[in-house]
Amino acid sequence: MRHHDADIDAAVQLLLKLKVDYKQVTGQDYKTGCPPSECAVSQDNGPAAAAADGEDMVDPWNVSTTNAKGVDYDKLIVRFGSSKIDQELVDRIERVSGQKAHRFLRRGIFFSHRDMHQVLDAYEKNKSFYLYTGRGPSSEALHVGHLIPFIFTKWLQDTFDIPLVIQLTDDEKYLWKDLSLEDCHRYTVENAKDIIACGFDINKTFIFSDLDYMGASPDFYRNVVKVQKHVTFNQVKGIFGFGDSDCIGKIAFPAIQAAPSFSNSFPQIFKGRKDVQCLIPCAIDQDPYFRMTRDVAPRIGYPKPALLHSTFFPALQGAQTKMSASEANSSIFLTDTPKQIKNKVNKHAFSGGKDTVEEHRKYGGNPDVDVSFMYLTFFLEDDEQLEKIRQDYASGALLTGELKKRLIETLQPMITSHQERRKQVTEETVKQFMTPRPLNFNF
Amino acid sequence: MRHHDADIDAAVQLLLKLKVDYKQVTGQDYKTGCPPSECAVSQDNGPAAAAADGEDMVDPWNVSTTNAKGVDYDKLIVRFGSSKIDQELVDRIERVSGQKAHRFLRRGIFFSHRDMHQVLDAYEKNKSFYLYTGRGPSSEALHVGHLIPFIFTKWLQDTFDIPLVIQLTDDEKYLWKDLSLEDCHRYTVENAKDIIACGFDINKTFIFSDLDYMGASPDFYRNVVKVQKHVTFNQVKGIFGFGDSDCIGKIAFPAIQAAPSFSNSFPQIFKGRKDVQCLIPCAIDQDPYFRMTRDVAPRIGYPKPALLHSTFFPALQGAQTKMSASEANSSIFLTDTPKQIKNKVNKHAFSGGKDTVEEHRKYGGNPDVDVSFMYLTFFLEDDEQLEKIRQDYASGALLTGELKKRLIETLQPMITSHQERRKQVTEETVKQFMTPRPLNFNF
Repeated sequence: MRHHDADIDAAVQLLLKLKVDYKQVTGQDYKTGCPPSECAVSQDNGPAAAAADGEDMVDPWNVSTTNAKGVDYDKLIVRFGSSKIDQELVDRIERVSGQKAHRFLRRGIFFSHRDMHQVLDAYEKNKSFYLYTGRGPSSEALHVGHLIPFIFTKWLQDTFDIPLVIQLTDDEKYLWKDLSLEDCHRYTVENAKDIIACGFDINKTFIFSDLDYMGASPDFYRNVVKVQKHVTFNQVKGIFGFGDSDCIGKIAFPAIQAAPSFSNSFPQIFKGRKDVQCLIPCAIDQDPYFRMTRDVAPRIGYPKPALLHSTFFPALQGAQTKMSASEANSSIFLTDTPKQIKNKVNKHAFSGGKDTVEEHRKYGGNPDVDVSFMYLTFFLEDDEQLEKIRQDYASGALLTGELKKRLIETLQPMITSHQERRKQVTEETVKQFMTPRPLNFNF
Repeated sequence: MRHHDADIDAAVQLLLKLKVDYKQVTGQDYKTGCPPSECAVSQDNGPAAAAADGEDMVDPWNVSTTNAKGVDYDKLIVRFGSSKIDQELVDRIERVSGQKAHRFLRRGIFFSHRDMHQVLDAYEKNKSFYLYTGRGPSSEALHVGHLIPFIFTKWLQDTFDIPLVIQLTDDEKYLWKDLSLEDCHRYTVENAKDIIACGFDINKTFIFSDLDYMGASPDFYRNVVKVQKHVTFNQVKGIFGFGDSDCIGKIAFPAIQAAPSFSNSFPQIFKGRKDVQCLIPCAIDQDPYFRMTRDVAPRIGYPKPALLHSTFFPALQGAQTKMSASEANSSIFLTDTPKQIKNKVNKHAFSGGKDTVEEHRKYGGNPDVDVSFMYLTFFLEDDEQLEKIRQDYASGALLTGELKKRLIETLQPMITSHQERRKQVTEETVKQFMTPRPLNFNF
């Protein structure tokens, strides 16, 4: 609902006199006139500000931009108050770990961080840390974009040899979607199979469903309640845009995503220690949860979790939006056949090429908006090959059809071998991964 | 903060134009000018209305009245939309159970109900039910008023031979009070000892701490989330007076008090059945939680819990307020010695007698405002003796000192034997009562 501006201005003056916030009254942002849920995070927590007209919108439920190259991530770093992953940090990760940096780091796909230097400082002094990532299981089928945090997290686990906890927020999906508890829990188990198929070490990894683990760990619930005591409705309203007509489950949920950031939520792994540093690799849209978590942590006697943020994986149709698991043609699914992959890429992948072969040869294509090229930056390991593809496409030497062929040839074996590994994952294996138990670490 | 009335009226006009609620803006009630937390339940749920000037205030955190006889319970029945426990219902309970009604029923101490006839209809057709009551453990020491629901619940359990679950809301106390989780949990165990000392049958009773049981029962958490999905912030704002600066834990808590009303929260007792009727004996101030629960129940496929409501136990100083566990002289504590009981009654119990013996003999005392007489209605079993005391006090034949002596002689052995029974309660017994386990019933 939009109101006459004169009315709004008069009301705002009165409310100022009454010392009451316009946004609190109307559920709308005075500056942009948009409901908070359509704005990005607001000023209540951290230095970020609500998205003004023309700015990208990024929160856990909405990502959109008008720019074909995608979200402006440098601006997002400023708005969110995080730090850029610069060459110096990438070099340091290589030095400390003794490993070549993962392509996601080399190529700026993980582009932002909080406190990563602190994690490395401690690691150099033999103080270990643990990894926490997760997923909201809203359907059975994952698409390739969903693998990004897991591919990177596996690399981190292998590189630093540390415990990993993976939260599957089936309670969140139940609260947000028109799904039954049973469906959400079934998706959790199916999603866990795809995650396990990424190759995580069963001796170092605990995967949990919120619906199950909440009812299996008094320590986890205690941390949830601790966070819930230290966050007000005003705060979650500012951070997540919740309104008065939202259900109380949504309002309280952020504490459940916060709690795994504290090591004593997993006494079976950390022997009750509450001081083990947590590092969270996630897409940048999850940052609001962890800004809130970092704000609360010192007030309840816990270390702040560190973060590594990734960019979004673009939809086949272009980088303006995130991929959606509910639109079959917006994504390459992990269940797609080689033929489906070929057809989808050929038919739906947005091209940065010119309209005719002649023009393309003459002027060259634009890899910066070409989705096939973007996908290759995610999945093609060889830096030199990738750079050659970029140059050839930009010069016009490589045609769109040839570029798409390279992507199809990269995706097909990747998806096929994922499917083969997934087939090996039995119900018994899932059960083992999801059983609260000690891992192969001495804390 | 109070504002100039002209400002308020102008703002209200504008807000009406903007279709926004005054209360939503200011956190205050337009009619009474008091913050919602100081008002009774509002119109958002059920037929009750916010307390207008001069009306009694009754919600889970505040009970007060300006009337020395205490809260006007008949008015409360109308405001809350419950039903009076009339002589017909008391007679029917006697008929169905084959037992003389408990003195709390005979004397109108349990005075209001929801759906009790329905419970008895089903019971007559051999359909059983279960009892659910509870307590918020905010300190180690209980006072005699805290025993009221437990004394009555024990009578119901003995009379109908049914399972009983007792919720100790240590999470609630952590959220509301300046206490640590550890303190709240310790109070829970100490309070459980006093509850067990009331004589509950270990084979028919499950006592649980929220902090423990939430982390021990995925089924309980599933019901909490179900309720949380079906209640909005607007609703809890209306029912409980929560505001934007309340923590998200408080906002979500009502679902945790609601969940034990559903039998499948206790699969170990009811073998997963979700259709076993629940009957909740509680003080009337807890009714807002269960109005909310009854509103949600059919929407998530569960039967509505039935209720039996008690009046408040008056403070020694008079019936205007509930007793407080934090003021030593407002109550008789279960830890008081016979001498302390004697001194407290003699020194602090508000008297309905006249200023001098001569006047008292001439005009008589007023038992309706006399706290010693009120206490005797709670604890003196013999109806004839009680009636004789009432008449003698009203006529002036019985002096205040003599009335107090009768109360002291009633309380001293009652408290002493409670203390003896409590001493018998070992940590092991507490652990048994609080272990999720099957009870001696076949569901």
